[in-house]
Amino acid sequence: MASSSIPLESLVIVHNVAKRHNVGTLARSATAFGVTEMILIGKRDFNSFGSHGSTSHLRFRHFHSLSDARHYLKEERDCDICGVEIADGAVSIEKHPFRKSTAFLLGNEGSGLSEKEYAMCDFFVYISQYGGGTASLNVTVAASIVLHQFGVWAGFSETSREGNKFVVAQKPEKMTKRNYCAESIEFIVEKRKNKKENSCDFFDEIKKDDLTSSNIMEDLFAG
Amino acid sequence: MASSSIPLESLVIVHNVAKRHNVGTLARSATAFGVTEMILIGKRDFNSFGSHGSTSHLRFRHFHSLSDARHYLKEERDCDICGVEIADGAVSIEKHPFRKSTAFLLGNEGSGLSEKEYAMCDFFVYISQYGGGTASLNVTVAASIVLHQFGVWAGFSETSREGNKFVVAQKPEKMTKRNYCAESIEFIVEKRKNKKENSCDFFDEIKKDDLTSSNIMEDLFAG
Repeated sequence: MASSSIPLESLVIVHNVAKRHNVGTLARSATAFGVTEMILIGKRDFNSFGSHGSTSHLRFRHFHSLSDARHYLKEERDCDICGVEIADGAVSIEKHPFRKSTAFLLGNEGSGLSEKEYAMCDFFVYISQYGGGTASLNVTVAASIVLHQFGVWAGFSETSREGNKFVVAQKPEKMTKRNYCAESIEFIVEKRKNKKENSCDFFDEIKKDDLTSSNIMEDLFAG
Repeated sequence: MASSSIPLESLVIVHNVAKRHNVGTLARSATAFGVTEMILIGKRDFNSFGSHGSTSHLRFRHFHSLSDARHYLKEERDCDICGVEIADGAVSIEKHPFRKSTAFLLGNEGSGLSEKEYAMCDFFVYISQYGGGTASLNVTVAASIVLHQFGVWAGFSETSREGNKFVVAQKPEKMTKRNYCAESIEFIVEKRKNKKENSCDFFDEIKKDDLTSSNIMEDLFAG
């Protein structure tokens, strides 16, 4: 277990996840395991969502490039960046190879981490598999196992329980900051739906991809 | 870690999982973590699928009642039955409270374990959460964390790897046995599609529920 006196944090980095709706399921697990921020990287302009409106339990932050994100994580957050990938030298997750606050970079579901993504990471963890039936895990499953183990290592406090459920906290006050997506996914989806904007952006794509659900959050918290 | 000389096994029990397509995603993780059998319990007649056709890496076995399944698991398999639920006396999964081969019973996503399901279990594990944003985890995420930890405890051998993927084994020879669903999900879905049968059964419901996918396995192994 960690012995640091500085509060430890976990973050999740999402870069070009192939299935957009995976961001929603990822967010549910990230929330459950105490992740502080989800770092979204890509060409789409998350800043265009503005900095007003409601915040959710999980903060989202957007960068246009891997190097911008790395600079933020290293200089402003003093994080290690850990790739979740079966790479050379990757350490099994149950060995808890952590030193301090860590941002986890997840490989694309199909192709894994790109060369640039590899270069961004300080170290790698992988999840042991014991069966020969599948080559890799679903990205949310992989992230969940890693985030849970980080919480065990970091000694995060357990959320209080009521009966057989963990207690859902009240939503925090809204925050605004540069690069900061201060709105919850549901608020953004709702707003876009109302405005019927045709601009192509990340959350619109979620809507298009996910034809069975009119609201990402239904999937996110009902499964 | 386990010190038993008898080969240890993990099994998964599925009883009234609310979202049918969760069985598919469960199966993917079960396969990855070396689960021997998925035990399906319910009124629908899995036996009607017959015992011919291809087998998948994962075996499915069906029982009509919880007590039939319990009898099989205790008498024929000498398994502990472990409920995955935040129950009184539940032990945190990272403490590995295991003794021998274990069948894991997952609570319904909405309502958790029923009274009869509780009564079937020898003990309970739960997964610590560290954030206040969600009351419970997705059922596949919960199962995956538990199955991975059981594999760590049991000392299951790691699947061999090629590059950054685990090697997918060849499918085993078909097996036939009473109560034994010898066919893979994809085979059954394909067969039902071809036959255009109208009988109401489990795998037909998967098709109806999952409107975005013509084949469960697309979701199962592509995510």
